[in-house]
Amino acid sequence: LGTHFKGEGVGGATTMELYEQLTAQGDKVRSLKTAKADKADVDAAIQLLLKLKVDYKEVTGQDYKAGCPPSGTAVSNDRQSENGGEEDTVDPWNVATNSAKGVDYDKLIVRFGSSKIDQELVDRIEKVSGQKPHRFLRRGIFFSHRDMNQVLDAYEKQKSFYLYTGRGPSSQAMHVGHLIPFVFTKWLQDVFDIPLVIQLTDDEKYLWKDLSLEDCHRFAEENAKDIIACGFDVNKTFIFSDLDYMGSSPEFYRNVVKVQKHVTFNQVKGIFGFSDSDCIGKISFPAIQAAPAFSSSFPQIFKGRKDVQCLIPCAIDQDPYFRMTRDVAPRIGYPKPALLHSTFFPALQGAQTKMSASDANSSIFLTDTPKQIKNKVNKHAFSGGKDTIEEHREQGGNPDIDVAFMYLTFFMEDDEQLEKIRQDYTSGILLTGELKKMLIETLQPMITAHQENRKNVTDEMVKQFMTPRPLNFNF
Amino acid sequence: LGTHFKGEGVGGATTMELYEQLTAQGDKVRSLKTAKADKADVDAAIQLLLKLKVDYKEVTGQDYKAGCPPSGTAVSNDRQSENGGEEDTVDPWNVATNSAKGVDYDKLIVRFGSSKIDQELVDRIEKVSGQKPHRFLRRGIFFSHRDMNQVLDAYEKQKSFYLYTGRGPSSQAMHVGHLIPFVFTKWLQDVFDIPLVIQLTDDEKYLWKDLSLEDCHRFAEENAKDIIACGFDVNKTFIFSDLDYMGSSPEFYRNVVKVQKHVTFNQVKGIFGFSDSDCIGKISFPAIQAAPAFSSSFPQIFKGRKDVQCLIPCAIDQDPYFRMTRDVAPRIGYPKPALLHSTFFPALQGAQTKMSASDANSSIFLTDTPKQIKNKVNKHAFSGGKDTIEEHREQGGNPDIDVAFMYLTFFMEDDEQLEKIRQDYTSGILLTGELKKMLIETLQPMITAHQENRKNVTDEMVKQFMTPRPLNFNF
Repeated sequence: LGTHFKGEGVGGATTMELYEQLTAQGDKVRSLKTAKADKADVDAAIQLLLKLKVDYKEVTGQDYKAGCPPSGTAVSNDRQSENGGEEDTVDPWNVATNSAKGVDYDKLIVRFGSSKIDQELVDRIEKVSGQKPHRFLRRGIFFSHRDMNQVLDAYEKQKSFYLYTGRGPSSQAMHVGHLIPFVFTKWLQDVFDIPLVIQLTDDEKYLWKDLSLEDCHRFAEENAKDIIACGFDVNKTFIFSDLDYMGSSPEFYRNVVKVQKHVTFNQVKGIFGFSDSDCIGKISFPAIQAAPAFSSSFPQIFKGRKDVQCLIPCAIDQDPYFRMTRDVAPRIGYPKPALLHSTFFPALQGAQTKMSASDANSSIFLTDTPKQIKNKVNKHAFSGGKDTIEEHREQGGNPDIDVAFMYLTFFMEDDEQLEKIRQDYTSGILLTGELKKMLIETLQPMITAHQENRKNVTDEMVKQFMTPRPLNFNF
Repeated sequence: LGTHFKGEGVGGATTMELYEQLTAQGDKVRSLKTAKADKADVDAAIQLLLKLKVDYKEVTGQDYKAGCPPSGTAVSNDRQSENGGEEDTVDPWNVATNSAKGVDYDKLIVRFGSSKIDQELVDRIEKVSGQKPHRFLRRGIFFSHRDMNQVLDAYEKQKSFYLYTGRGPSSQAMHVGHLIPFVFTKWLQDVFDIPLVIQLTDDEKYLWKDLSLEDCHRFAEENAKDIIACGFDVNKTFIFSDLDYMGSSPEFYRNVVKVQKHVTFNQVKGIFGFSDSDCIGKISFPAIQAAPAFSSSFPQIFKGRKDVQCLIPCAIDQDPYFRMTRDVAPRIGYPKPALLHSTFFPALQGAQTKMSASDANSSIFLTDTPKQIKNKVNKHAFSGGKDTIEEHREQGGNPDIDVAFMYLTFFMEDDEQLEKIRQDYTSGILLTGELKKMLIETLQPMITAHQENRKNVTDEMVKQFMTPRPLNFNF
């Protein structure tokens, strides 16, 4: 065993994995004792527990404490990586890196203690679902996971699961990056035929931003229209505003309180960086994002069953919420949610930050006209091309830092066409202006179609999606 | 101006009063500015604000900070009073004093910055209500208040108000002390003819105690039966479990979130003594006890009106919750709740602590038989009498430390009879055994009657009281 820290691999296990093993082993010892199992079995389980505790102490330099994940797994702004370079900042409120290629996602997997979505897993999803994997899987846009193999094992044995994703409605304006989790979630829902719940955290936005409750709630309803426009099936999908659903579901509130009892201020301080001057609403909010990961929060859908496995597709910056959720789950008698993590959608100015609705120049909005799209791409999209046509023809462009190319990896369906573009751009055959034109011609019809779809979303439909009700599944 | 601290009077104002003056003055300056008032008026208001800030700094040694009450007003276990003696411990979880006479309530008024219920106020309540004041008022059992005169001023101008009180359902067993706020609240409801809401904090008990959610909720329903047995009018009273009502009222949750946004961890740390290792549920709970003090939490009763004044009768140990509530109220656009504070109901063993359901020997339960009552009083009730009959006849007993006499002040209606007992006991005419017999004969029929009433409370009635619905009032 090594003596390094901060999520680094140790005998193949990250500190977070070691922590989770320890927690699971503690649960096992307790359940053996409760079940009055054979003394030999209990003793063996305790021996392993003690061994894991020694390993943990050696690796982290800290004593294992139930409910307190290793502090090295929290991601803070001023963390330095071990080689002395600055680490990327990735938390639910900030994403930043110095690299024009964007965040180093392989490093993030190690830091967060998650697992890479490798070709083997992509192949397995294809086999189990019987469908060609979504381009987001083929291209590593969903790149990291927790327990996805477990979900597939169960699914192969006819044990179903459900999807949970969400959005923080901080304004009426959604940009193309906001669609990523929804586009992918819709694909998952279609190929696995499972229920989906979508949380709109209007309470969170009220707590964090200088906005009124009424505005946050209105943004939630407006955002719901854009989400519905992605094509979700109303018979399989429940969208909810926290401000409404908390006040319409005693079961949801019960799960929130259960989580709130099992997480301390020390823990949320470590995980989210909260301080003593933060309001008590922020401090307790993580429990509200955790609760939808438990099927008993939706008795109208799951008929009171509390053991339906949850799978959460989300951007990797939301992982801290679900690390906390996974830590709490076994202690309150629920299965841990599985996760699929996506990369960020880069800002027009480059992959050093993600696209942000609060910076209009960084974003292509779902309300932009074809002309606005054209102008924004031409004016703001950071280019990996060379300064002059001559240079470009001679040396070629760099697609790895070119925002137009990055966006095409998100939205162009044809793998061969995309690969040809990459090669032609790299060799210098394809000029920056031509590449941008291809992106513009991909985005314009896509966004026009979205606008058409959204126009057809009536208030009545929003109400239907947002009404707690049974879905077309038998649980 | 003096330079002392810890709630001590300064020019007639406690630090808490000074803090509240400052907060009010800040509100005034803001509203003058908003209303674009005359510059001279604004300037004058600002001058006073600045002067108050200087005073505040001088008195507390701290800068005034909006939303942060002076730390000296928090009541902690290890606080020393200025004369070097130990101060009484009074917070929502602990009550303790070294004095057999019980807590020094006059000192508490100074420390908490509340106002004494003096004869003038009792007379005024009599005049406004047109009823003889309740014995709890006549005898100083409700001894302290905040803004009661304001409530009466408005009531005289036909501006109604509502009552809010509550109980933490930590077990099925309620004792006679638990009835005090309800007996008094019923009287207030009868004489003023106003709506009443009763909060059962089953979520709080789950968070604080080693109990399941189901148990806490069951205790809430059982306790509701004892409360209903006090004779409340179902057409004027709404009883609610937090676990149920939070999940049935979006308006209630909205007010909880509003409070949670305006209170920091620093503040609840100062007010309640929470620490970093407390769970996030405890840390955010105070907002849930605050929300019922705002009429918009009950749209079914107040038809959406958010300006109906609230009056909270409660034991003084609950005041920290409502100091916090009063601090937040103007910042979220609501009137501050008024308060009426009661003394504690002493344990059988003496007034050093209050009666506690978790110590069976300290308590007379509402389920005790006449025989159990007799035995407990005879065996455990601390006596202010002398060791021998001869000594007692000669020197007399001390009613101020005698628990049987104290209980009679709570439950014996006739003032003259009570005064005669006090005199006879003090002079030695009345022996301890005789005094205890009087108490037994007061308690036995009272508790038997309560048990009869409770037997008549059906599950159907509980459901009725606990269903959100309009009450018989026009708001």
